[in-house]
Amino acid sequence: MAADAVAAAMAASSLCDDLEPATVRTCIRDVLAAGAARAGERVVVGGWVRTGREQGKGTFAFLELSDGSCVSTLQVIVDAAVHPLARLTATGTSVLVEGEIKEPPEGTKQNVELKVSRVLEVGEVDAAAYPLPKGKVKLTLEKLRDVVHLRSRTNTIGAVARIRHQLAYATHRFFEENRFLYVHTPIITTSDCEGAGEMFQVTTLFSQAEKTEKELKENPAPSESEIEAAKVIVKEKGDAVAQLKAAKASKQDISAAVDVLNRAKEHVSKLEERSKLKPGIPCRDDGSIAFENDFFKRQAFLTVSGQLQVETYACALSSVYTFGPTFRAENSHTSRHLAEFWMVEPEIAFANLQDDMNCAEKYVQYLCKWLLDHCREDMEFMVKNYDKSAIERLELVSSTPFVRISYTKAVELLKNVTGKKFDNKVEWGIDLASEHERYLTEDIFKKPVIVYNYPKGIKAFYMRLNDDDKTVAAMDVLVPKVGELVGGSQREERLDVLKQRILDAGLPLEPYEWYLDLRRFGSVKHSGFGLGFERMILFATGMENIRDVIPFPRYPGRADL
Amino acid sequence: MAADAVAAAMAASSLCDDLEPATVRTCIRDVLAAGAARAGERVVVGGWVRTGREQGKGTFAFLELSDGSCVSTLQVIVDAAVHPLARLTATGTSVLVEGEIKEPPEGTKQNVELKVSRVLEVGEVDAAAYPLPKGKVKLTLEKLRDVVHLRSRTNTIGAVARIRHQLAYATHRFFEENRFLYVHTPIITTSDCEGAGEMFQVTTLFSQAEKTEKELKENPAPSESEIEAAKVIVKEKGDAVAQLKAAKASKQDISAAVDVLNRAKEHVSKLEERSKLKPGIPCRDDGSIAFENDFFKRQAFLTVSGQLQVETYACALSSVYTFGPTFRAENSHTSRHLAEFWMVEPEIAFANLQDDMNCAEKYVQYLCKWLLDHCREDMEFMVKNYDKSAIERLELVSSTPFVRISYTKAVELLKNVTGKKFDNKVEWGIDLASEHERYLTEDIFKKPVIVYNYPKGIKAFYMRLNDDDKTVAAMDVLVPKVGELVGGSQREERLDVLKQRILDAGLPLEPYEWYLDLRRFGSVKHSGFGLGFERMILFATGMENIRDVIPFPRYPGRADL
Repeated sequence: MAADAVAAAMAASSLCDDLEPATVRTCIRDVLAAGAARAGERVVVGGWVRTGREQGKGTFAFLELSDGSCVSTLQVIVDAAVHPLARLTATGTSVLVEGEIKEPPEGTKQNVELKVSRVLEVGEVDAAAYPLPKGKVKLTLEKLRDVVHLRSRTNTIGAVARIRHQLAYATHRFFEENRFLYVHTPIITTSDCEGAGEMFQVTTLFSQAEKTEKELKENPAPSESEIEAAKVIVKEKGDAVAQLKAAKASKQDISAAVDVLNRAKEHVSKLEERSKLKPGIPCRDDGSIAFENDFFKRQAFLTVSGQLQVETYACALSSVYTFGPTFRAENSHTSRHLAEFWMVEPEIAFANLQDDMNCAEKYVQYLCKWLLDHCREDMEFMVKNYDKSAIERLELVSSTPFVRISYTKAVELLKNVTGKKFDNKVEWGIDLASEHERYLTEDIFKKPVIVYNYPKGIKAFYMRLNDDDKTVAAMDVLVPKVGELVGGSQREERLDVLKQRILDAGLPLEPYEWYLDLRRFGSVKHSGFGLGFERMILFATGMENIRDVIPFPRYPGRADL
Repeated sequence: MAADAVAAAMAASSLCDDLEPATVRTCIRDVLAAGAARAGERVVVGGWVRTGREQGKGTFAFLELSDGSCVSTLQVIVDAAVHPLARLTATGTSVLVEGEIKEPPEGTKQNVELKVSRVLEVGEVDAAAYPLPKGKVKLTLEKLRDVVHLRSRTNTIGAVARIRHQLAYATHRFFEENRFLYVHTPIITTSDCEGAGEMFQVTTLFSQAEKTEKELKENPAPSESEIEAAKVIVKEKGDAVAQLKAAKASKQDISAAVDVLNRAKEHVSKLEERSKLKPGIPCRDDGSIAFENDFFKRQAFLTVSGQLQVETYACALSSVYTFGPTFRAENSHTSRHLAEFWMVEPEIAFANLQDDMNCAEKYVQYLCKWLLDHCREDMEFMVKNYDKSAIERLELVSSTPFVRISYTKAVELLKNVTGKKFDNKVEWGIDLASEHERYLTEDIFKKPVIVYNYPKGIKAFYMRLNDDDKTVAAMDVLVPKVGELVGGSQREERLDVLKQRILDAGLPLEPYEWYLDLRRFGSVKHSGFGLGFERMILFATGMENIRDVIPFPRYPGRADL
């Protein structure tokens, strides 16, 4: 392209005069945060009406406007001359308005207000049809789960969303500040991570079967007689070639006849190929499903943990972490389990169990401190509406060194408890139940507790065997309100010990050869842990049901949207 | 628990004297960054030997040590008196060493070195067996994909991992600074997002079938005659009750006989229930698969995009974004497609197409600038080894306003191109091919280009229809090297228009009722876009194959680990 053509092209790229100009919107959080300092300024704000009411005999209206940037609403005043008020006041109405920030009435503790000069856009609401009723009549959290596409418009789900966001953001800040690399471990996996739980299978066999059926309906598989007929033609064409050869025909004629023969043969093999097409899921001769026909040529599943895979990165890049969705196909209907949830899993090379505990303690404290510093208003909302002690709990955990106690000592303490009867009997060797964990952190120590060195029989094969040959270098962080928040361990780095532990667990070695390679070549001491992200949100907010702290909860029978 | 018991418990929580003390490790990046300023300091560093060689007739060894914190290695000097040198020098060996930081030899441009006083830990390597050969003999990137669990130990995959991490981190920083909330949209979905591509199905039917088969093998289903026999017993027990009643037996005797009868009836229903157990995938009467027996009581899939779901949050909390894995079950074997990849999808309320472009431009520029500021050494590595112009490209994109040009104008420009023949003919209405996109950004404008207002026929139903009734408010950001990096649009916010567009696309309304609700109640103008995260990494690094820029690539036939 010549230089002047380029210049012409450049000229042709206008400043988009065929497009609507950009919107300059100020978020409500910023208007409110500045307070009187911005009084007199003209701004455009957008949001949804939480409550609206006409005043002064219909001469003006007050709208409490939320744009989701904070819990608080901005009070907006619209005169009847500016816009028909009745179209603005229904709960849920959206507006984009321009106006002037006004100081609050003197002597009051009110926030600044917005006096509207222009209503730029309105999205109306038919109040009778709107699924979220106005004002004080609130849907229960349970009912809100049936309108998962609208529930983010409520104060509660909005506050949880902001807290969730800040916890995710703080997670990335913490690990970046500490030189960890974020690694995206796979969601679809062919590794069976030691039966951490039931797995979902990922497949295209159903859609393949559906396609085959459709295809067979449009174009049925050839019958035996069709194939026989085609074979007869092959025979004829073969005979024709033989005759030409016998008759010493010209090369050209023979070659033409061979072409015809080949096409006939091809036709037969195509028919035979198609005759094998069967409706339904492909099966092997023994009747089992032929997963070698699936997308990945084998069975593939949704991950239950990124740990094993992220270890490959830790054994190369030292300090790494994952933060992503994980899955359990378990038929749990409790308030603490989801089929899809998010996990944070750091993995650290050259780190022993004590390093692991230090990292977990610092991370959890960082999250708590972050919320106190960056989510104060939302936390106050949770305190007011859901859990009086939510802020106290964050303060306690962020400022108190965690108690560290061996499993053996923890069991001793729990055995000596008087005046409280546990549903599950305490004795060395049991997996601590939630009631035990909560008693340790809430009643005995009244602060976060790290329990370490668990019996090997109740823990996974990859946890490092201690010298006593009875316990493994595992640790759980227990906190008030939720009990176990973090589970981690030092990993077994000794090749022979690891092999034996895999075999002892009744597992085959072959699928773990890649994992064993990490111990064969430049093996290092390393440790890591997992934090259930939703459990952290329950801990922080005091919410009771895990289905309310993830935007789109998945559990048996439910996967809305 | 009494106060003194608590005190005793507290005393019991020792300072973990039964645990190995924590490790204080300094990362190599920090040692090198400080340079001579830390000379004389004693530190512990850990890492893997990239190259090692004995010197001075075996009296000492030089090890080039990497811990993945940066491209550069730290030169480590070990005397033979400190440790047997032959056990340290093989490529891939891991060491944790203590030593003193030494200034580089005067007059050289070398980095600081570490003079080792103690070798704390070693993980040896059998050089003959190690799959990653030493030094200059490098495996190709393609071969490295067969050792996906070890390839992060190479310079290239390490550099890509650090660049990927920084791009992810910068993404979260950018959106937090601009008041966007991070929303975790679901991975498992029952929405069919307008056929963006083939979907993977998520199921537990195979494992259920397997369990049933196993269970039937251990405990076969009852035969007809077993059930008949059980029914005969019910008859007998019924007769017995009747006889007792006729004989006016005691209430106690009758009630006992009724109990026996009920147990017999229960037994029959259990047998009948079990007799229905069939091996294989559950089917309906018409032979189709009974997905109502699946985990979510219906068909469920892996998401192809979080856009539709995140719109529910944008229509409540204004500025939101997703960043998570998405999936395509397509049989693509190209260097640009994966079955599992990560996407960033912002969604902004009260935003039109121009706002959307502004956001995309600022975001992409932020990413480029971030890499220049935070990943200089890794970028220099890419320039040296893979793409001479990688840094120039980042500089260009981060500092140049993007050209904005309508689709119609873009087509005109491409039609007028002389001296270059496209494989795909250009005419109004076509979807621009990669060759066209790259020609626009690389040849005509030599900078990033945003093309907007595409023909409605080639775009999705949810894109806002323009007044010309021929185009929709869509936009693509094109950049040198990869072509399309971002695709976005203003969303159709008008209920009636949206309904019609769904119907015109040949789709049913029912599955989109929740999506239509967002337009029924307080609808707002809103816009968003998607950025393929791996494509951004290709753009930044100059790498050629998408399988090399994600830790664990998934494509047809392959899902290692």
